[in-house]
Amino acid sequence: MTTPQLVEQIKKKKSFLCIGLDVDLDKIPKYLLEFDDPIFEFNKQIIDATHHLVVAYKPNIAFYEAYGIRGWQSLHKTIDYLNQTHPEIFTIADAKRGDIGNTSTQYAKAFFEDLNFNAITVAPYMGRDSVEPFLAFKGKFAIMLALTSNIGGLDFQTLEFNNEQLYETVLKKSLTWKNSQNLMFVVGATRPEFFETIRKIVPNHFLLVPGIGAQGGNLQEVCKYGLNKNIGLLINSSRGIIYASNGKDFAQKANQKAFELQQEMQEIIEN
Amino acid sequence: MTTPQLVEQIKKKKSFLCIGLDVDLDKIPKYLLEFDDPIFEFNKQIIDATHHLVVAYKPNIAFYEAYGIRGWQSLHKTIDYLNQTHPEIFTIADAKRGDIGNTSTQYAKAFFEDLNFNAITVAPYMGRDSVEPFLAFKGKFAIMLALTSNIGGLDFQTLEFNNEQLYETVLKKSLTWKNSQNLMFVVGATRPEFFETIRKIVPNHFLLVPGIGAQGGNLQEVCKYGLNKNIGLLINSSRGIIYASNGKDFAQKANQKAFELQQEMQEIIEN
Repeated sequence: MTTPQLVEQIKKKKSFLCIGLDVDLDKIPKYLLEFDDPIFEFNKQIIDATHHLVVAYKPNIAFYEAYGIRGWQSLHKTIDYLNQTHPEIFTIADAKRGDIGNTSTQYAKAFFEDLNFNAITVAPYMGRDSVEPFLAFKGKFAIMLALTSNIGGLDFQTLEFNNEQLYETVLKKSLTWKNSQNLMFVVGATRPEFFETIRKIVPNHFLLVPGIGAQGGNLQEVCKYGLNKNIGLLINSSRGIIYASNGKDFAQKANQKAFELQQEMQEIIEN
Repeated sequence: MTTPQLVEQIKKKKSFLCIGLDVDLDKIPKYLLEFDDPIFEFNKQIIDATHHLVVAYKPNIAFYEAYGIRGWQSLHKTIDYLNQTHPEIFTIADAKRGDIGNTSTQYAKAFFEDLNFNAITVAPYMGRDSVEPFLAFKGKFAIMLALTSNIGGLDFQTLEFNNEQLYETVLKKSLTWKNSQNLMFVVGATRPEFFETIRKIVPNHFLLVPGIGAQGGNLQEVCKYGLNKNIGLLINSSRGIIYASNGKDFAQKANQKAFELQQEMQEIIEN
């Protein structure tokens, strides 16, 4: 998928919502456990109920890995279902991968070719040659951690040297890497005060913003400085939507929660 | 496994060698491709030929993920084979994982429980709450990236602020985390000049040292400052051993290469 195609979808749906498909068998409705593949069944119902309200889905790979080979099978079925039924939707493997060059290429093949995701999240600590292999795939994106929403995000990311913080250096350096137009960046919604600085460094790139909802981030505050001329934001909500109910009405309740967020986004886009 | 058990094994085998099981179907002997599971067959033969010379094996998970569900099956078979035939050997999932707390717990379950590895490599960028979940498992270790062997390792890890470099701050902070005795650290063999500083910060922890061989690191130089009273080093070699030959004698040649390194280590241990 190209950036213009993503922007077109945002404008058409009046939404820049991403739903995190972080499926935990302890949290899904009990009746689903009787299905052959409860994780896929859960995802399918969430997708069927919300696809018109969102522009992206983001399974966090940890939740699938935790179930071993069965989990990988569920992930495969989920991404195949998405690609078949809604090929216009942007798909993000939230995997936070990164390794030395030849190894990162293996990860890129796994997620871009075998699983056919549009994007993967990557970690910056190992530097240029750990990220560039992901940027070499046409029509695919590497979404690099910049400033994360968790408490530990402040342990190292905001350390200051030469009058700038680590996450700023990470952003700036990454713009010099080959195919940097295929980068997006993770910036937590719990850090709205940083968006102004971030937009000065990366005015044009998309930002993937987790932390709305369960983690306490506020959509209006994020949008105040985060929006750009192409919208430029993908706002992720996981638990707040997919676990809005743990009864048989879970998909309907997920639809309601997604609709509320989409409405809020529509108002922001139109004003 | 406990640290004393690992140290005992090192002293018994007079080796602190770790072999990286980074299996690439394009590089293994062609005749193996006719087996049901070429990756497992390759690993099995490498293990059978080298287990008495090494104290650890380290599959890099990227190489298995790249083959999808079949790759995960090969990984399962490999770790099961290791745990059944050589339970005294330390097993490291080189996965470089790290995510917000509840998600890191999912990764820890996947690698410590489902796959039953002794250790996993983790990335530090997301800070304390992304690593502590891995440290909560008794008898298991999180091996955190400190100073990596690749070129990009110098992009951020050696940035200096308050008179110390990022990797030093990462090391120091991590010692304040809960169950920090369950930490080990990745330090590349290509950076021998840093080992003196690192040993001042973490005198007692084990260091996992990749980069010997194909990447150009030198064993003697690493040992000069890296050794501690418990040896405290796991020296990894991957390509230099497992791809020493791509003919039918690959396991025998791997044995030779591992034996050469073990002999060098024995001399270091005994002097």
